[in-house]
Amino acid sequence: MRLRNVKNATSIIENCSFVIKNPKEYKGQYNKLFNNENDIHLEIGMGKGSFLLDMALKHPNINFIGIEKYDSIVCRAIQKIEPISPSNLKIIVTDALELADIFSKEITTIYLNFSDPWPKKKHAKRRLTSITFLPIYDNIFKDSKTIIQKTDNISLFESSIISLSKYGYTIEDISLDLANTDIENSLTEYEQKFMNQGAKINYLKAVKK
Amino acid sequence: MRLRNVKNATSIIENCSFVIKNPKEYKGQYNKLFNNENDIHLEIGMGKGSFLLDMALKHPNINFIGIEKYDSIVCRAIQKIEPISPSNLKIIVTDALELADIFSKEITTIYLNFSDPWPKKKHAKRRLTSITFLPIYDNIFKDSKTIIQKTDNISLFESSIISLSKYGYTIEDISLDLANTDIENSLTEYEQKFMNQGAKINYLKAVKK
Repeated sequence: MRLRNVKNATSIIENCSFVIKNPKEYKGQYNKLFNNENDIHLEIGMGKGSFLLDMALKHPNINFIGIEKYDSIVCRAIQKIEPISPSNLKIIVTDALELADIFSKEITTIYLNFSDPWPKKKHAKRRLTSITFLPIYDNIFKDSKTIIQKTDNISLFESSIISLSKYGYTIEDISLDLANTDIENSLTEYEQKFMNQGAKINYLKAVKK
Repeated sequence: MRLRNVKNATSIIENCSFVIKNPKEYKGQYNKLFNNENDIHLEIGMGKGSFLLDMALKHPNINFIGIEKYDSIVCRAIQKIEPISPSNLKIIVTDALELADIFSKEITTIYLNFSDPWPKKKHAKRRLTSITFLPIYDNIFKDSKTIIQKTDNISLFESSIISLSKYGYTIEDISLDLANTDIENSLTEYEQKFMNQGAKINYLKAVKK
């Protein structure tokens, strides 16, 4: 996602109460940070935050953490979330490659919404469902491992199914047209725009025991 | 597939050299029938036979058996195959539910091309990738188990991915638009018609160890 630079991004992020500034210090102890024993769900690439905010409000008994690597995008999410600031929603500014240094066996669900498809074959390992990332997720997942992906990109979707299946995940649910199902769905900004154009969203839920 | 009745269907089938009339007698011994030790691939619901004939000609070192339950459709397949009659192609007139009485640990690949989608939930167990059929396939598969499915029906495709994945199959290859891949493809009659209308074909290759 490309956005114009936000002025004072660093200071906006520094002053935000729900951005975790020193995430590595909480490794293995995020439930203490949330002050409860509820499940922790993670969105990798939270973008402008619509999905995460909607999910946090719908599911007060689940803790949500969004990660996003671009300061300017995090600022847009902060602007959206700040007026409500639900206590079960936190943000970490980081890259997905850092996840194993930040979490340890404490995540139960990972959301991958409209991730960068990295369409070129030589970039396939950068896809968030590639063999680069699945072992990292193993380290941060608790006993149950659930990945939920949404994408409009067919090649990314195909490569995710193959990669997850070969890595031992079971595809427990799938839709090639999410809007025409009764699967619960919180929309991302991108998704809303995309669906308004009548396009179809691919969805999968993969579980590893 | 619905077709007008073919006159003398019974006699056409009786007199065809490549229709196996007493298949249960060959159970566990189909390699003897083909007089070689080559792999045996099975198409369930072979329809008018285009796919199987094309595959048999492209792959002379694989044995192909097509099953089809409707006499009138088998007759159309016979008409198409008879002028060439490749020695590595046989037909059995039967229902898929009978497969475990006909074969025993001797099939390496099953093709499911444009199978009946049975769209109603109450008929889900009639789908050829449902839990009704997967245990039957276990009994007829040799050590390696490969299912290759093509369909234009999205609901059938979704339900196949879930069912195969839950049953322990790995999705090794998948495409939501088969025509735009380099996957080798022999067309069925239905597929040719369908593609001429610009529609997309879903494809998967699932393997169980």
